[in-house]
Amino acid sequence: MGGDHGPHVIVPSAVDYLRQDSEVNIILVGISDAIESELHAIKAEMGPRLRLHAASEVVGMDESPALALRNKKDSSMRVAINLVKNGEAQACISAGNTGALLATSRFVLKTIPGIDRPALAVILPTITGHTYMLDLGANVDCSAEHLLQFGVMGASLVSSVEDKALPSVGLLNIGEEEIKGNEIVKQAAELLRNSGLNFYGNVEGNDIYKGTTDVVVCDGFVGNVTLKTSEGLAQMLATYLREEFQRNLFTKFAGIFAKPVINAFKNRVDHRQYNGASLLGLRGIVIKSHGSADNYAFCSAIKRAVDEARGGMLRRISERVAELSYHSKPSPRETVK
Amino acid sequence: MGGDHGPHVIVPSAVDYLRQDSEVNIILVGISDAIESELHAIKAEMGPRLRLHAASEVVGMDESPALALRNKKDSSMRVAINLVKNGEAQACISAGNTGALLATSRFVLKTIPGIDRPALAVILPTITGHTYMLDLGANVDCSAEHLLQFGVMGASLVSSVEDKALPSVGLLNIGEEEIKGNEIVKQAAELLRNSGLNFYGNVEGNDIYKGTTDVVVCDGFVGNVTLKTSEGLAQMLATYLREEFQRNLFTKFAGIFAKPVINAFKNRVDHRQYNGASLLGLRGIVIKSHGSADNYAFCSAIKRAVDEARGGMLRRISERVAELSYHSKPSPRETVK
Repeated sequence: MGGDHGPHVIVPSAVDYLRQDSEVNIILVGISDAIESELHAIKAEMGPRLRLHAASEVVGMDESPALALRNKKDSSMRVAINLVKNGEAQACISAGNTGALLATSRFVLKTIPGIDRPALAVILPTITGHTYMLDLGANVDCSAEHLLQFGVMGASLVSSVEDKALPSVGLLNIGEEEIKGNEIVKQAAELLRNSGLNFYGNVEGNDIYKGTTDVVVCDGFVGNVTLKTSEGLAQMLATYLREEFQRNLFTKFAGIFAKPVINAFKNRVDHRQYNGASLLGLRGIVIKSHGSADNYAFCSAIKRAVDEARGGMLRRISERVAELSYHSKPSPRETVK
Repeated sequence: MGGDHGPHVIVPSAVDYLRQDSEVNIILVGISDAIESELHAIKAEMGPRLRLHAASEVVGMDESPALALRNKKDSSMRVAINLVKNGEAQACISAGNTGALLATSRFVLKTIPGIDRPALAVILPTITGHTYMLDLGANVDCSAEHLLQFGVMGASLVSSVEDKALPSVGLLNIGEEEIKGNEIVKQAAELLRNSGLNFYGNVEGNDIYKGTTDVVVCDGFVGNVTLKTSEGLAQMLATYLREEFQRNLFTKFAGIFAKPVINAFKNRVDHRQYNGASLLGLRGIVIKSHGSADNYAFCSAIKRAVDEARGGMLRRISERVAELSYHSKPSPRETVK
């Protein structure tokens, strides 16, 4: 029900996705009338692969997450997350209120043992491929241990959805010799170094899009600012490019010739293919789609959920966290010695 | 003497700059032989507007700032900063070791009363013009008071070099409702709101390149990561664009037509015109040029120094900080009441 377009985008996306992937079934959760009328509009029907699960309430996009959690027990978001908890669904995808999705997922699903806080991870394009970055805003103040756990979750995510047994993990930091990072980041580097992960070491801002590592770890404040700055810069450059091609008759003429090339370029950087932030660290798969997602973008988010479920991501996180405790803490027996 | 190219770029840049601006005199500080041979190579001569001030040592680009400060009392950097301290020069420009420049400037010049820590400010392009952002890495852990002081310094910088009496100041933060920023940023917003500055409020990462405010304030960790991420993203997009134009015969042909447009676009985003980070908060003007600066970029850095000196930046910072103490602290008399 959430996002800028609600069922109007989500219902057709679900129908499209089912055509692409014959192994997946989808449960549409929300106000029955709204969902049915969208299905009717695109001449699609419910069936064994596409079910409707009614929910009587909707969390507003600007609603307080705390209030949504307390008062809207039958919201589409809450009901969908319950389906994951009960094992009826392997993942939940929402384009709704991010804060409410975080709070509700955490409350209903709980975190995996050894994980203190869930984190939001996104996939970003790089010069050579793509990279995964977390946290993107779920946690503002992070301890070194949290950053370590983000590393574990990020590495597990990459292992699940890509064919990489030991993905490289970089810790986002700054470069100046005298001032390399604050205390928390320094401690986190130490923890990551002894974690059994494939820890690359510190990376700087420019390493993200260079693709230096498979995973980039940072706190949610830095991650959120970095991501939004990137959006802003990309928009500015796109505006400049458009303006230059619109400048005069000659540039417009050049624009006609360059159009297929510019379009190929645009497709390559099209953020819709990267839609879907993974909420990691919970006992269930939850994907947050951008609120403004269109059909293509929402299908990317569904695909992300399916890939994580297929790749056994939850099991991988649990296993790596368990290894971590083995690495970082001496066993009781050793302590006794 | 510093940077990737030393006098080979700096000396010709100085000579070029003097041709552009008849009111400015330049003192070249460093190893006499090296400077003289560069002057000789471009058939330029010393004179009343271009002097040489010898210094026998050079701070290495990877040298420890603390050691440089302690042991190299006759480094070109130290001697140049001394000239500012003694009033023989109105500003110092260096392409050298950033950490050493920060440490030496702070030690020699001291901070302006009311400013606890110097900050690095850069100018960035926006959709509508440009914006100034600080801190860019001089301070990793900042208190709310430091962020307030950065706001004061940034506003004073803009007032000095642009025709804006009350530049707008934004505080970089994240947007999610439940998690709007850490405690320090929240406190800083409160301080900025009562500062007498034209405080816009919180801004998000995408506001930087949108040009929402004249000044964007953040701690040095976030600022450094943001700036380097922007560099990385711009490089990635440039690579993609080049690759698309190189893809086949047709795209190469389109590239020939589009070349003037792409060049105009490149000139518009050419980071060399933004070269020169201002080290603010000291009792003297210090500009850090990028180490890789070429002639054009280094001239931008010189121009930045000249603009700050002409605009009376130091006086403006002092005045605004003084007003600040008036705003934020009750006078002794009031305290007595």
